[in-house]
Amino acid sequence: MRIGVVAPSSRFSEEAANRVRALAAAEFPRVELVFHPQCFLTHNHFAGSDEARAAAFVDYANDPAFDALWFARGGYGSNRFAEEAIDALTPTAREKGYLGYSDAGFLLAGLYRAGFPSLAHGPMPQDAMREGGEAAVRRALAWLADGAEDSLEPELERGRSYAAFNLTVLTHLLGTPLEPDLSDHVLLIEDVSEHTYRTDRAMFQ
Amino acid sequence: MRIGVVAPSSRFSEEAANRVRALAAAEFPRVELVFHPQCFLTHNHFAGSDEARAAAFVDYANDPAFDALWFARGGYGSNRFAEEAIDALTPTAREKGYLGYSDAGFLLAGLYRAGFPSLAHGPMPQDAMREGGEAAVRRALAWLADGAEDSLEPELERGRSYAAFNLTVLTHLLGTPLEPDLSDHVLLIEDVSEHTYRTDRAMFQ
Repeated sequence: MRIGVVAPSSRFSEEAANRVRALAAAEFPRVELVFHPQCFLTHNHFAGSDEARAAAFVDYANDPAFDALWFARGGYGSNRFAEEAIDALTPTAREKGYLGYSDAGFLLAGLYRAGFPSLAHGPMPQDAMREGGEAAVRRALAWLADGAEDSLEPELERGRSYAAFNLTVLTHLLGTPLEPDLSDHVLLIEDVSEHTYRTDRAMFQ
Repeated sequence: MRIGVVAPSSRFSEEAANRVRALAAAEFPRVELVFHPQCFLTHNHFAGSDEARAAAFVDYANDPAFDALWFARGGYGSNRFAEEAIDALTPTAREKGYLGYSDAGFLLAGLYRAGFPSLAHGPMPQDAMREGGEAAVRRALAWLADGAEDSLEPELERGRSYAAFNLTVLTHLLGTPLEPDLSDHVLLIEDVSEHTYRTDRAMFQ
């Protein structure tokens, strides 16, 4: 089981990678976790230039040696190359799972629109840096490695369609080539501690 | 020349109204400025309930006694009733000018979509409360009272179409019934002191 990690948005750190590597080695010994070298590039506040981030994503997504792709963290920037990069994916890319949230929602939305079957909204390696983040990373690895039933949101019902997004990301992809058809979906929103008027404005849209 | 003021968004104050009244009386004696009583209502952080704000807007817009409608201030909330209120406007409402910016952009967008001919993005009574705001209010009154040429953005060229918006307001009305057709328009954006990534994300959309 090989999981590739790429960083399509903001800068990532070796420290976060090391925490996740340690947890994976201790608790998911059959998982091989490979952080693409791009994860540690910096270009302004991005994890490398648009070209570098796009190339790493396409590289690992199209590589049959990986069973899943995990987005390292959110922040900002995946929208800057998502459309073009998704167009560059091959059928091999459809056979793996993809996991992330926040800014990675731009890519997940575009992949969903393109019909990719195995996409999930969930924790990312960067979560290892926050209080209580170990449990989140463990849950993510359980989904990536095993599709573990208990890694899923407990309220989900089989036979229904769900989408989960950061509301700001979702509203900013409406009308763009990344917007998926969410008809008849239940929308789960990740936002917490947001001003009520901002949530109201987004829900209006 | 009668200008009606309504407050479609956040709470407005008597203090701001008095400052604008004083300036208008001193410098625009032929202008009669009428603040709708709704301007001084409060409902949470709104200037009255959705129903009260909508009713005041429709009331003054449809009243032939007013030559222009001026939005008191921005903040948040005009999107909550804009579509329904615009549907309730009569041909009389098309004969007057409308001025505002920020959150009032939801209404101006919907009015533009509905073909209203005299709409401008510019200062509001609330500007009287800020440093340098008197000049802004003066400029607004010059447009409302006289359509004064020197009240306009100096770079505008005759024969071109322009739209001006707060970027957050504009992005949040995309795909809604308020979205106007901005094909072949020059877009002016009001935003200042915004994080670059936020502007970039909005421009992406």
